Order: sequence, then C-alpha cells, then structure tokens
Amino acid sequence: MKIKKVCILGAGTLGTRVALQAALSGYQVSIFDIYPKALENSKKLMQRIVKQLADNSGLEDIAGMHAISTITFTDNPNVAIREADLINESVTEDVEIKNSVWEQFGQISPEKTIFTTNTSYLLPSMFAEISGRPGKFCALHFHDVFYSKVVDIMPHPGTDPSLIPTLMEFGRSLEQVPVLVKKENPGYLFNSMLLAFIGAAGKLLTGGVGTLEDIDKSWMVNFHMPMGPFGILDSIGLDTAWHVTHTLPDKGSQAFAALLKQYVDAGKLGEKSGEGFYKYPNPAYRHEGFLI
Amino acid sequence: MKIKKVCILGAGTLGTRVALQAALSGYQVSIFDIYPKALENSKKLMQRIVKQLADNSGLEDIAGMHAISTITFTDNPNVAIREADLINESVTEDVEIKNSVWEQFGQISPEKTIFTTNTSYLLPSMFAEISGRPGKFCALHFHDVFYSKVVDIMPHPGTDPSLIPTLMEFGRSLEQVPVLVKKENPGYLFNSMLLAFIGAAGKLLTGGVGTLEDIDKSWMVNFHMPMGPFGILDSIGLDTAWHVTHTLPDKGSQAFAALLKQYVDAGKLGEKSGEGFYKYPNPAYRHEGFLI
Repeated sequence: MKIKKVCILGAGTLGTRVALQAALSGYQVSIFDIYPKALENSKKLMQRIVKQLADNSGLEDIAGMHAISTITFTDNPNVAIREADLINESVTEDVEIKNSVWEQFGQISPEKTIFTTNTSYLLPSMFAEISGRPGKFCALHFHDVFYSKVVDIMPHPGTDPSLIPTLMEFGRSLEQVPVLVKKENPGYLFNSMLLAFIGAAGKLLTGGVGTLEDIDKSWMVNFHMPMGPFGILDSIGLDTAWHVTHTLPDKGSQAFAALLKQYVDAGKLGEKSGEGFYKYPNPAYRHEGFLI
Repeated sequence: MKIKKVCILGAGTLGTRVALQAALSGYQVSIFDIYPKALENSKKLMQRIVKQLADNSGLEDIAGMHAISTITFTDNPNVAIREADLINESVTEDVEIKNSVWEQFGQISPEKTIFTTNTSYLLPSMFAEISGRPGKFCALHFHDVFYSKVVDIMPHPGTDPSLIPTLMEFGRSLEQVPVLVKKENPGYLFNSMLLAFIGAAGKLLTGGVGTLEDIDKSWMVNFHMPMGPFGILDSIGLDTAWHVTHTLPDKGSQAFAALLKQYVDAGKLGEKSGEGFYKYPNPAYRHEGFLI
C-alpha cells in the first residue's frame, strides 16, 4: 500500500521529530496530543530543529518552515486520525497510558490504518490485541531522526509479515536506515548494545577502576567519538538511565543504579537539567585539552 | 627520571608499532625478539606503516625512514637492554612465556630500568615478583598507537606510585592520551566496554534477534562509525575473540563462543585470514549502499 497520510500520537521530543521528518519527506502529517501546550511546544521545537538543519545540513529554511506549516497540530483524535494510512505512537512510556491510547485509536481509525509504536523499551505485543488489529501492529522505533538515522522495525508474533517491506520502505522514505528486529527484544538492536557498554562503564566507575573522565577518554580516543559513555548518559538523561538500570538484578548494575539515583535525587538529570556527570552547556569533554 | 632509551620486548604487531612511535618521538629504541625472522618482519611492517602515515597523516617519508634506521633490531638480550630506561614488553600472551622473559630481563637489566608490560588481558601482578623489581613494575598498554591513541597505565598493588606520573608523561610524549586504571582489571577501561557491547551483539546474533548486517548497521548509523561490532571482531581476530569469550560462564557468551569456534575451525579468523564475518579486502560494510 502507498502511505500518504501519517498520524503521530504524542507531541514529545521524539514524536515531534518524526512528524517533522515525515512532513519534510512530503507526507501529510497530523500530530496529536491531549495537551494543547505540548502541541505549542512541539511546533516551537520543530522551528528550532529547522533552524539547526538550515545551519548545519543544507536544508533550506523556507522549505523547513513550509513543511511545518503543512502539519496539523491537534488535540482532537478524530481530526488527527482522518484518512491516516499509518499511526506512529510516541506517547508516555507507560503500559496503561499506551493501552488506553491504542484502545481509543483502534476504535476510531480507518480500516486501512497501519498501527506502529515508537516505544523505547516496551514491546508491541503488549498493545497489539487492545488495538483491535494485531496483524497490522508493529514497532517502528526511531532513534533521533536527524542525527542517528536508523529505524527499528520490530514485529510481534502476530504481525502480518507483509507489513515489514511496507515499513522498511516507509523508513527509507524518511531518510532512515531500516533494520529488522526479527524477535521482540526490549532493547531492539542498538539499545541492547548501548546498555551493555554503558553498564560496563558504570561498573568501572562504581568499582573504582577509573575516573569518569578517563573512562570517557578511553572510549572517545579509541572510537574517535565526540563523547564517551558518561557524556552519552548525560544526553540520554540520568533519570531514564536509572529507570532502565535499577531493574537489572546483578550487583554491578545495582551499584550503578544507586549512583544514578544520587544524581537524580540531586536534580542532576544530565544535559536537559544543566548538569549530570558534566556541566552544560559547555561540558568538559568538549573542551580543547580534554584529550591529553 | 628522564626516559631516553626504550627497549621493546617482542617484535609482533603491537611491539613494532610502539617501537616505531618511540623512535618517531625521538627516543633511542631497541626491539628484541628471539626470532630473527620476526625482527625482519617487524622492520618491513614499520616501513609499510611509515608509507601509510606519509600518505595519510602528513608524516614526512624521510623522517619516518630515518626513525626506523635509528632502531636497534636484535635477538641479543644484552644488546637490547643496554642502558634502557624503560622496557615495554609485548611478547606472546602466555603466562609462562612472559614469566620467563621477565625473569631473564629482571636479571640483566640496569638498576634504573622501569619495567612495563603491554599485556592485553593478563595482569601486571602476575609478573611483578618474578621480575625482581615489583615496585618498578606496571602495565603500560597501548591500543593501536597510530589510530587509537590511548595508553592505559595500570599499576598493581605493589607499584611505586611515583612511577605513575613518569609513565603518564612518557605516554603523552608518544602522542597517546594516557588514562589511569586505578585497580587491576583484565579489560583495563576500554576493553571492558568493548567486550560488553560485542558480547551483546553476539547474543543478538545467536539469539536470532537480528542479522549481523543489521546489528552492524545499527551501531554504525547511531554512532557514525565506519564499522559495527562484527566488523570490529573481524579486525580483532575471531581467534582472539573466541579466546576471551569462551571462558565466560553465561549461556549467551557460550553460544557466541560456539559460533566463533565454527568460524575459527573453518580458518575464518577475520581480516587477517581474508574472511571472518565479512570477506576482505573489500568487506560489505565498506560498500556504498550498505547503509540503506
């Protein structure tokens, strides 16, 4: 089937980015949120992203602003879903909230609509049944859309296999590299690896093997990367990192979760709060002379 | 103390690279191996590296060739050690071999000589006593010297702390970023993280969650890196990877070790044998169109 109209549920950071890229790629886009304020902020965020893209990647400002102008921002579910070929859901990472959203949209969506969830660590099988169309339900998980251009396509056991090539092609049309996650896995592909090396970094720190700066330097110099695991944690958010880490049973993860909790309790959530392992907007790892 | 003369033990890949960088940095360098053929190959490898550096990083060919000409290549331990201020040992990764080397050089080295081992996953405390000077014994672990310019300084509990700043400064003088590994750890800093994410990648593959290409794509696109975990494994060598992985007790590591063993048994050791997960010299992940 040919996807023309895309409906984004949830106007947070990720939903906003997916909606913007879809509009830039020429899709008709609606973005839905129950909070009008969230929709306002979403539009402002899009404007900032367009400015950045205009500065850094050659997007024409005018093309970006035009794309934003074509998007329907709405808190009305029926307006949002009208004629939608595909939903990509990025609402709060909470099973009950996602369930109620999928129950609602399962009832009001056109017959043709493909249902996709952008969940970060929950599984599509958790919502497939309540949506009323498990065969048309699949995870379609974006990372950052504009910098990390990969999209995970993760079916659940009941997903109709014919959906996969459609979603691969849709991902490519949004300038993403699509990868297939053949079995449900809470970390998709990349996040499983990310969690593993960040966990190892956490254990090096809490075990007193290295300072966080030295651990980050090792990563940055070996891999020629602009930040190491603790810089990455700051960009992910230490609250999110704690959320994932504190459920892991092993002693090393528990020690690291306890450290993360200290930061979170002190209001140090990472880049978004101005301080995490480093201080922002000018963290030490970006200073000239960090790598000596 | 001022280090002027450096003695490299073992003329394999890493010893050769450290010796060359030390000569380029202006040190007097000797490189020792019991096999004259290894010394010949070492000199040839240095010549190839100098050509590459001349092509890629602006080193002057003539300066590189001059540096090589200043190095003493020898299978005579007494010649190698003459007036050496520091030994960096890169002999075969085998406890008995390293023990016999350190016992021998402990006896013939000048009083002043600092002893460092470049061991990949053994610990300095394993050799400190037999060397006869545990206080002057420390791990000084290079990664690749010319691409991954980080050096781990890892004391054992008996290392004289005053050695650390000397080794940090020596590392910097070789254009490396020195990092301190405050406690003995078989994976230093970086290798612990490397092993963790490569192990996670292995589990994704053996668990049927993703293809090796999709796992690599996820890593490459998210981190803007030229290869993913399976490309990295090919460059490390699947025999080395098996060696580290097969000792890990968990089920996922065992499954991955079993897979690595199949490759190794089939002679597929990675880049060095022409084939591993990918075929060389032109692996799929370097093809245009891999990331779509």
